[in-house]
Amino acid sequence: MTSVISLLTDYGLEDGYIAACHGVIVGISPESRIIDVCHLVPLGDVRRGAAILAQTITYLPPGVHVAAVDPSGSRRAVAVEAGDHVFLGPDNGLLSWAIHASGGARAAYELSNEEFFLPPLSTTFHGRDLFAPVAAYLAIGRHLDEMGEEIPINRLISLPAPTSTVQDDYAEGEVLSVNRHGNVQLSIGAADLMTLRVSLGDTLVVWMGGRRLAVPFKESFTAVPPGEIVAFIDSVGLVALAINSGDASQRLGLPPGARVRLSPAP
Amino acid sequence: MTSVISLLTDYGLEDGYIAACHGVIVGISPESRIIDVCHLVPLGDVRRGAAILAQTITYLPPGVHVAAVDPSGSRRAVAVEAGDHVFLGPDNGLLSWAIHASGGARAAYELSNEEFFLPPLSTTFHGRDLFAPVAAYLAIGRHLDEMGEEIPINRLISLPAPTSTVQDDYAEGEVLSVNRHGNVQLSIGAADLMTLRVSLGDTLVVWMGGRRLAVPFKESFTAVPPGEIVAFIDSVGLVALAINSGDASQRLGLPPGARVRLSPAP
Amino acid sequence: MTSVISLLTDYGLEDGYIAACHGVIVGISPESRIIDVCHLVPLGDVRRGAAILAQTITYLPPGVHVAAVDPSGSRRAVAVEAGDHVFLGPDNGLLSWAIHASGGARAAYELSNEEFFLPPLSTTFHGRDLFAPVAAYLAIGRHLDEMGEEIPINRLISLPAPTSTVQDDYAEGEVLSVNRHGNVQLSIGAADLMTLRVSLGDTLVVWMGGRRLAVPFKESFTAVPPGEIVAFIDSVGLVALAINSGDASQRLGLPPGARVRLSPAP
Repeated sequence: MTSVISLLTDYGLEDGYIAACHGVIVGISPESRIIDVCHLVPLGDVRRGAAILAQTITYLPPGVHVAAVDPSGSRRAVAVEAGDHVFLGPDNGLLSWAIHASGGARAAYELSNEEFFLPPLSTTFHGRDLFAPVAAYLAIGRHLDEMGEEIPINRLISLPAPTSTVQDDYAEGEVLSVNRHGNVQLSIGAADLMTLRVSLGDTLVVWMGGRRLAVPFKESFTAVPPGEIVAFIDSVGLVALAINSGDASQRLGLPPGARVRLSPAP
Repeated sequence: MTSVISLLTDYGLEDGYIAACHGVIVGISPESRIIDVCHLVPLGDVRRGAAILAQTITYLPPGVHVAAVDPSGSRRAVAVEAGDHVFLGPDNGLLSWAIHASGGARAAYELSNEEFFLPPLSTTFHGRDLFAPVAAYLAIGRHLDEMGEEIPINRLISLPAPTSTVQDDYAEGEVLSVNRHGNVQLSIGAADLMTLRVSLGDTLVVWMGGRRLAVPFKESFTAVPPGEIVAFIDSVGLVALAINSGDASQRLGLPPGARVRLSPAP
Repeated sequence: MTSVISLLTDYGLEDGYIAACHGVIVGISPESRIIDVCHLVPLGDVRRGAAILAQTITYLPPGVHVAAVDPSGSRRAVAVEAGDHVFLGPDNGLLSWAIHASGGARAAYELSNEEFFLPPLSTTFHGRDLFAPVAAYLAIGRHLDEMGEEIPINRLISLPAPTSTVQDDYAEGEVLSVNRHGNVQLSIGAADLMTLRVSLGDTLVVWMGGRRLAVPFKESFTAVPPGEIVAFIDSVGLVALAINSGDASQRLGLPPGARVRLSPAP
């Protein structure tokens, strides 16, 4: 049986770091299928790592999912069972949105049993020396309760969920992420727009800081001519603002975390 | 038996998009070998995607090859049989040069049977929701004619082949692509130079716009001292202009599409 | 049995070059597990390629390891047995540090038997046409002595090992590499600091050119506040200088090759 191990890190692709993780895994579990989720998480950006993992996990097969983004370098290493998945990572909130997307934590363990680490444990490279070997041992059938003490799931660090509120005549949220095209993904979902009775073809009023802007709500960012702004439901069901062949984040001045309010045009 | 599925997209590597495609494939066809052809095709650059696929396909094993670069976002999704391969992609010409390189289309189908899609089909992410699952189902033995209606192969959109003409004393073509080193690949092939009776060691006159330049024709870009210009036959059999340790495209002012004429030095 | 083939090149990720190498390997040896060590080695930077391979090889399973960084383009292709590994690459020193890290060369061969090459051999793409097929044939059980003549191991080109000397009261070395975070890795090891009786928590004096700087020696680059300089033992056991959330190479003016001296603060 093929087991799946996925990896998400901020290690970049300009070194052999990811290959070292692969090598450690293959040395222990030669049959595992490794899926690289993303290794270009901006350095230390826990929130962005959490968003990528949460938006990808739905499409990954049951498996062991390693995430290593830890600017403090000192968080305890944990394993969390949720849905069909086991998540391994630092206890700094990185895993929290993916755990939530997988149905919530069922059990959690602190990874403290050095028997399963790669000796000597470096202080700076837990992906290779701790998470990779533990993931591989789990993949070949070792049990989570061998890896360390069970810990209460309500003590796990969670990132605050991106807020989004819906009132009678508007939805308010924040910029969840900006992708390489400059598309601005909001924490406002398709369902929120339904509550506001907005339909494809309608016009939305977007409120950002002191400004406001009328934007057509279409099926896709290619539904408007090049250079024009559009709102659409993106590939994970969230409202996104985009400019066809342009960078919406830059032009609208909307970085991650910025507050945005949407209302139907009168 | 291992089946091969290859992927070429403009999704970039900074998100979990590619991992989602891999996850969908592995969930349906756990034994498939996935080869990532390239995910850094410039956004929406159908021509560049077509060139990369066509220049790589010769080296890929028989398999199902997915290409997703679709600036319009609205082209019908097709499957095309050519040689030992099945190509999946939007009907916008992206596949056409690879199909030609594989011996031409033998049959084509519109991918319309939603039974093989990942529900709900997003409007913006056909790589994950349509092409990935269809590729995986084909890999495990489902048949093309289950995926939708057969369509006439002469109705498939083709990109105009990069032109190249050979006269008595010159060959004329265009810049096909520029790689990361700044090497300029022309649509003029090794055979065209043979027709002009040019041999290794000869000098070529390169005509660009109003300018002309004498360039040595050598076996490789390292056959001249650093900083000097050279013409050579590149790894796919086309004439390339390069500067040893420099950026030829920038220095010669030759972007993709620019017209170039080559003649033997008198 | 799964065999492992690893690849390190300066081909970049913006073309189909790496996929072509994968395709050639899979076509010959469908069961091989391919590990991409790094394809973003700066173009022609043999020294950086050598450092990445040497620092990664310890974590890779026994296998065939291909490295292709060859600015001259004209070095003979060799295979070198060392430890559990076979290394394939140009004879320009690229392999030398990894061979040393694997216990030294046991035997070497010139790869001259064209029977195992992909015809026609291009002059510019030995990774695809020569190293990939030879690696794959070795993976399916062909023998090294079929690939070409055995050559004396003392004739292999070696890069000069990065120098590091330890005197009574200082260690002197050079900048071995700079990673994407700007961390500066020195050729001075943890053992050298022990010789100088430096312990965690001590202060080091770093001498660079005419300048000197007092730097705390800590367990990790996150042990100091953002913006501050720190020395620590990195993930391969070497002394590194870093700035928490900053670029130490840029701020300290320390590119690869720069000389650095470390002494305990008085």
